[in-house]
Amino acid sequence: MCSIAEMAVPLSPLELLERTWHGDPVDVDDARRFVTSWLGNGATDAQMASWCAIAQARGLPRACTAGLVSALIASGERLDLAPLGMTGDLHSTGGVGDNVTLVAVPVAAALGVRVAKMSRRGLGYWGGTVDKLEAIPGYRTELDLGEFVGQVQRVGCAVIAQNPRLVPGDARLTTLREATGTVANRDLVAATIMAKALAGGAVALAVEVTWGHGAACRDAAEAAATADLIAWLAEGWGRRVRTTVTAIEEPLGRMVGNALEVREAADVLRGGGPTDLRNVAARLAGDLAEAAGVSEPGGGARRAATALADGTALETAERWVAAQGGDPGIWTGVTGLPTAPIGLTVPAGGDGTVEGIDARRVGEAVRRLGAGRLHPFQHVDHSVGVELLVKRGDPVTAGSPLATVHARDQWLGDHAVAEILASFRIRGDSDPPD
Amino acid sequence: MCSIAEMAVPLSPLELLERTWHGDPVDVDDARRFVTSWLGNGATDAQMASWCAIAQARGLPRACTAGLVSALIASGERLDLAPLGMTGDLHSTGGVGDNVTLVAVPVAAALGVRVAKMSRRGLGYWGGTVDKLEAIPGYRTELDLGEFVGQVQRVGCAVIAQNPRLVPGDARLTTLREATGTVANRDLVAATIMAKALAGGAVALAVEVTWGHGAACRDAAEAAATADLIAWLAEGWGRRVRTTVTAIEEPLGRMVGNALEVREAADVLRGGGPTDLRNVAARLAGDLAEAAGVSEPGGGARRAATALADGTALETAERWVAAQGGDPGIWTGVTGLPTAPIGLTVPAGGDGTVEGIDARRVGEAVRRLGAGRLHPFQHVDHSVGVELLVKRGDPVTAGSPLATVHARDQWLGDHAVAEILASFRIRGDSDPPD
Repeated sequence: MCSIAEMAVPLSPLELLERTWHGDPVDVDDARRFVTSWLGNGATDAQMASWCAIAQARGLPRACTAGLVSALIASGERLDLAPLGMTGDLHSTGGVGDNVTLVAVPVAAALGVRVAKMSRRGLGYWGGTVDKLEAIPGYRTELDLGEFVGQVQRVGCAVIAQNPRLVPGDARLTTLREATGTVANRDLVAATIMAKALAGGAVALAVEVTWGHGAACRDAAEAAATADLIAWLAEGWGRRVRTTVTAIEEPLGRMVGNALEVREAADVLRGGGPTDLRNVAARLAGDLAEAAGVSEPGGGARRAATALADGTALETAERWVAAQGGDPGIWTGVTGLPTAPIGLTVPAGGDGTVEGIDARRVGEAVRRLGAGRLHPFQHVDHSVGVELLVKRGDPVTAGSPLATVHARDQWLGDHAVAEILASFRIRGDSDPPD
Repeated sequence: MCSIAEMAVPLSPLELLERTWHGDPVDVDDARRFVTSWLGNGATDAQMASWCAIAQARGLPRACTAGLVSALIASGERLDLAPLGMTGDLHSTGGVGDNVTLVAVPVAAALGVRVAKMSRRGLGYWGGTVDKLEAIPGYRTELDLGEFVGQVQRVGCAVIAQNPRLVPGDARLTTLREATGTVANRDLVAATIMAKALAGGAVALAVEVTWGHGAACRDAAEAAATADLIAWLAEGWGRRVRTTVTAIEEPLGRMVGNALEVREAADVLRGGGPTDLRNVAARLAGDLAEAAGVSEPGGGARRAATALADGTALETAERWVAAQGGDPGIWTGVTGLPTAPIGLTVPAGGDGTVEGIDARRVGEAVRRLGAGRLHPFQHVDHSVGVELLVKRGDPVTAGSPLATVHARDQWLGDHAVAEILASFRIRGDSDPPD
């Protein structure tokens, strides 16, 4: 009798969902079969969306996440980068104003890691790296895999849009998640990053997990759990990995918007730019150098800062962008980036000190300006965005400028000015302390 | 500036979802527009499934549930039953072995309420009333609305499958929920019941909210909250309503399976049958009589018990089934119901006392026997199911029969025997007390 009760009957999609809802054990194979069935149009979009929502609301068991990663990798081809020597890939879970990748890739390449990175477009309230790169005149985000690998070998790095031959299932999953508001949660963030990284074939990985009101994770504990899950998955697939956790309570750097963020990355590559962005990028590039073994443990970030200061990162960035058809003059300011026709100032309402800036609200305002998407095929305006002129801790006086809004037209601009003003939390000089 | 920030821009489906995820306020109109958009193929199934999952995982604000009810009612026609006098409708949120409707409808009609009830097929781990009625030879569950109203007027009651001209959106929502495991949650249960009841046009309503491992709500508090929400919605739409809360920790009655549950309802209508089922059905019918004003407050259940004892409910049931083309002999045992070819005994493993029966596990075992569906178009076997021979508190001895499994073939039967055995929690005579 027992032998019959113990017979493993494959779970239907509904049974898998019910088990997940009830918190009953689900094994890696059950989860992989469910995702594979969805990718093969067996399980429906509604069923997959429901599973994503469970992940977001309650979290999935690790076996489920591993099964998801396995199914996503199996949905396409895998690159083998071993012939290129010490290859690396880096990922940030992203956030409002997060242009770390634009800086960290040429820095890591300058340190000797061959960086082969695929990136993506955005749909949530922050942009994707591909949207930012497409603000660069001439830059080709679509290389075929042969060109991509060749450029990594020749130039030291390449950043392209996610190739549809690799993890095609992830693009479909991402579209579903973006349309259902299930982007920002531990298990799906970890699974989608790791499926792409593992299929991409790089030997070493560095992953930055962001948290805060404008980031992938709500709080530091959630970010630490995500980093831990990523490391667990990477080690399970035999990779060398470093993870870091970064708070994005206010937007990273001062720029939010595609061309604006490229301009800011150029400032950092020239040895200037905002300190927070420079430090995060140097740490991520340094982590990758350490994971790849081209830098001694603990010394990666220092070497990365040197590469930013001595111009080797800038030089690598110029070769990288030129190799992909872009105008390298954007890094040195010789060539312009697209600019918006209207600039509007956001004035402070009174005297005081900036206590905080609601990053999510800023991200949503910039999306409404046209810099992001509300549906997958929406046109992105690369020129628009917001430049923050003060950040947390800065003093302001009545009427002094808090930010500049770069807009397509007056109506959109006025709306954004009001939204950006509302996103600032300013303590008046006469307010009592908390 | 403020006037621009305060301009109400209609929310996109993604924004509505994001607001719901973040717990930001959503008003009735936003929610109604979202559901209406989904019904018009604007918002996708994935987006609606995600909203259902949020409802299940976290609960929706009342304004969202009211918006959902409003959109569902507006998706089709509404009946006007005012010309029929005091009309009533009753609903149970259902559970494993819950055949209360089969008894409560003729009882309430015998007490003088004109009961106009539409019911449904099942997909979760418990069956729908329509599946049970279709076990009756000849019974027509599909009447057109004219026939339906005419029978209510002539005979005093009618029970048909949900008419597709009324709340067609609900059928679509139910299919989505059943396929995604989001059937059992407060807000969607309340919304779907109330949309059907309000569009159905009855003046008085009685609703039984079930809780327990084999029911719609997890616990008594959740059931009370559901009942409260149902009453709030009913009163908002101007109806007279009574709600009750019922625990279904073990299956209600002794039968689980379509024809078996009809047979058990017949036992109750003849004045016998399991006490728990008889009491729940009498209370629900009595509540409806009170809500409709044909019974004095507090006296409905007693009058219902009398109608079961004196044969007037049985007589009404015979007229009802005959009017819908069914053989009324099934109530008196003159005519048979479909029976399964194989009967297997589930023997107790040792001496002791039944501490509990896992209703959900029993429901799932009966579904696997063929009595329920794993996908919407699956054939239902009306003959199969389980007959529980002992229930909580009953003593058992090693080898004594716990239940009888009625199966289509030996393999399915053996599997169910093992599952039913595992669903029994039996305390051995030598076990220490808790």
